Amino acid sequence: MNIAIIGAGNVGWHLAQALQSAGHTITAAYSRSASPREELAQLLPHAQPVGSLNFQSIAADVALIAVPDAALASVAAALQVKQGTVVAHTSGSQPLSILNTVKGATTGVFYPLQTFSKTKTVDFKQVPILLEARDEETLQLLLSLAQSISSTVEAVASGARKQLHLAAVFACNFTNHLLGISRELLEEANLPHHLLQPLLQETIAKAMQQHPYTVQTGPAIRHDQNVIEAHLHMLQQQPQLQELYRLLTQSIQAASKNH
Amino acid sequence: MNIAIIGAGNVGWHLAQALQSAGHTITAAYSRSASPREELAQLLPHAQPVGSLNFQSIAADVALIAVPDAALASVAAALQVKQGTVVAHTSGSQPLSILNTVKGATTGVFYPLQTFSKTKTVDFKQVPILLEARDEETLQLLLSLAQSISSTVEAVASGARKQLHLAAVFACNFTNHLLGISRELLEEANLPHHLLQPLLQETIAKAMQQHPYTVQTGPAIRHDQNVIEAHLHMLQQQPQLQELYRLLTQSIQAASKNH
Repeated sequence: MNIAIIGAGNVGWHLAQALQSAGHTITAAYSRSASPREELAQLLPHAQPVGSLNFQSIAADVALIAVPDAALASVAAALQVKQGTVVAHTSGSQPLSILNTVKGATTGVFYPLQTFSKTKTVDFKQVPILLEARDEETLQLLLSLAQSISSTVEAVASGARKQLHLAAVFACNFTNHLLGISRELLEEANLPHHLLQPLLQETIAKAMQQHPYTVQTGPAIRHDQNVIEAHLHMLQQQPQLQELYRLLTQSIQAASKNH
Repeated sequence: MNIAIIGAGNVGWHLAQALQSAGHTITAAYSRSASPREELAQLLPHAQPVGSLNFQSIAADVALIAVPDAALASVAAALQVKQGTVVAHTSGSQPLSILNTVKGATTGVFYPLQTFSKTKTVDFKQVPILLEARDEETLQLLLSLAQSISSTVEAVASGARKQLHLAAVFACNFTNHLLGISRELLEEANLPHHLLQPLLQETIAKAMQQHPYTVQTGPAIRHDQNVIEAHLHMLQQQPQLQELYRLLTQSIQAASKNH
């Protein structure tokens, strides 16, 4: 298919290259700023870098919008596409209806559930893609596009997708932050961070096999008040971390009561 | 070596079996309660189940104490071993000096940095073991014991080990809890939890390659207030989760300012 990519951030960057590798033709790469769209277009032999949201002269079966959530409404309102181009956004948190303002196009959602950084390659086959569309024909088109790059493709409506996105914030963004805190604590004691790698891998492997609440370990679940107090004491110079430790401990203890 | 295992909880359970598989002889398995010590001793052909802390008739080069942190001081005070038995505890959070009350034994620490559940096997080769000892000879003995079951063995003093343990609480216990929350959120929307698996694996893989703070993604780091407000609204029936979301978001934003 001919695909236009709107947005040259982390998602657009990886999506464009995965689609190209799967044999699709990326005809345009849009970004408001010149340098990201030109960098991206250089990786895509058939793509013209585009700085305007008037796509009426661009051949595209599908235009994928991969802009920050906060910019999605205004991009949708300004976007103009050729008759017959399907317009889909790639956001986990935004409803399909945010594209209602796109003139003369059928619309859908094409949400790759992964964390992307430009500096790290991603195996798209392993990335679940969650779809939604205004009509069955559009859904089938997006389905065939998604299946060309990923082995896990599912239709999920806006409400469930929003909940999935919230779950992903806990599982990915917040988890990553805890790993960052943990790394800082290691660095304070001049300890190499690779020491924690097996623990982390085991934590994730276990959480995938069983409900994490049933395999919770550590001082909080044991109500080991001496250790908890000692840890809070160690964090006394970092009141925000201390508060986070306290709240997570309480939350672990509350969850164990309800399970 | 001849090894006595004191404690038949998650750590003692796995450690005893790993040591036996490496060719050591487990001569005794202690637990205060009858049923865990008998269950464990049944897996160890040469181990007698023991309900008293008088080990003076038990042949052991090393006695490993794997009891809950809160019980460690009282076990150390009550333990009696044969002349020449090295006594080591397996706790991340407790200092070597907590064993000072053990009569007539040289002491050490033998801390396997992993999360253990009886229901899940563990490849001990991948488990870092952190050692400390009162003298060089004891350290060498523990080193040779540790290296017989693990490929990562390091000497770490009490202060640094305590910090490592705190880092592990963030990276493992707290992370596991977030994964539990995430799973509950998926279940509320009848979504299969395997959808989040690639995201999780990528999160961990990335955090191991780069400092997690430098690859943070999501609404908090983007200061995407609309999405943050929508998520807080979705959590309004769960005030503790809502507070946790708010605090983690603030913490991500504070960390990004300082990096």
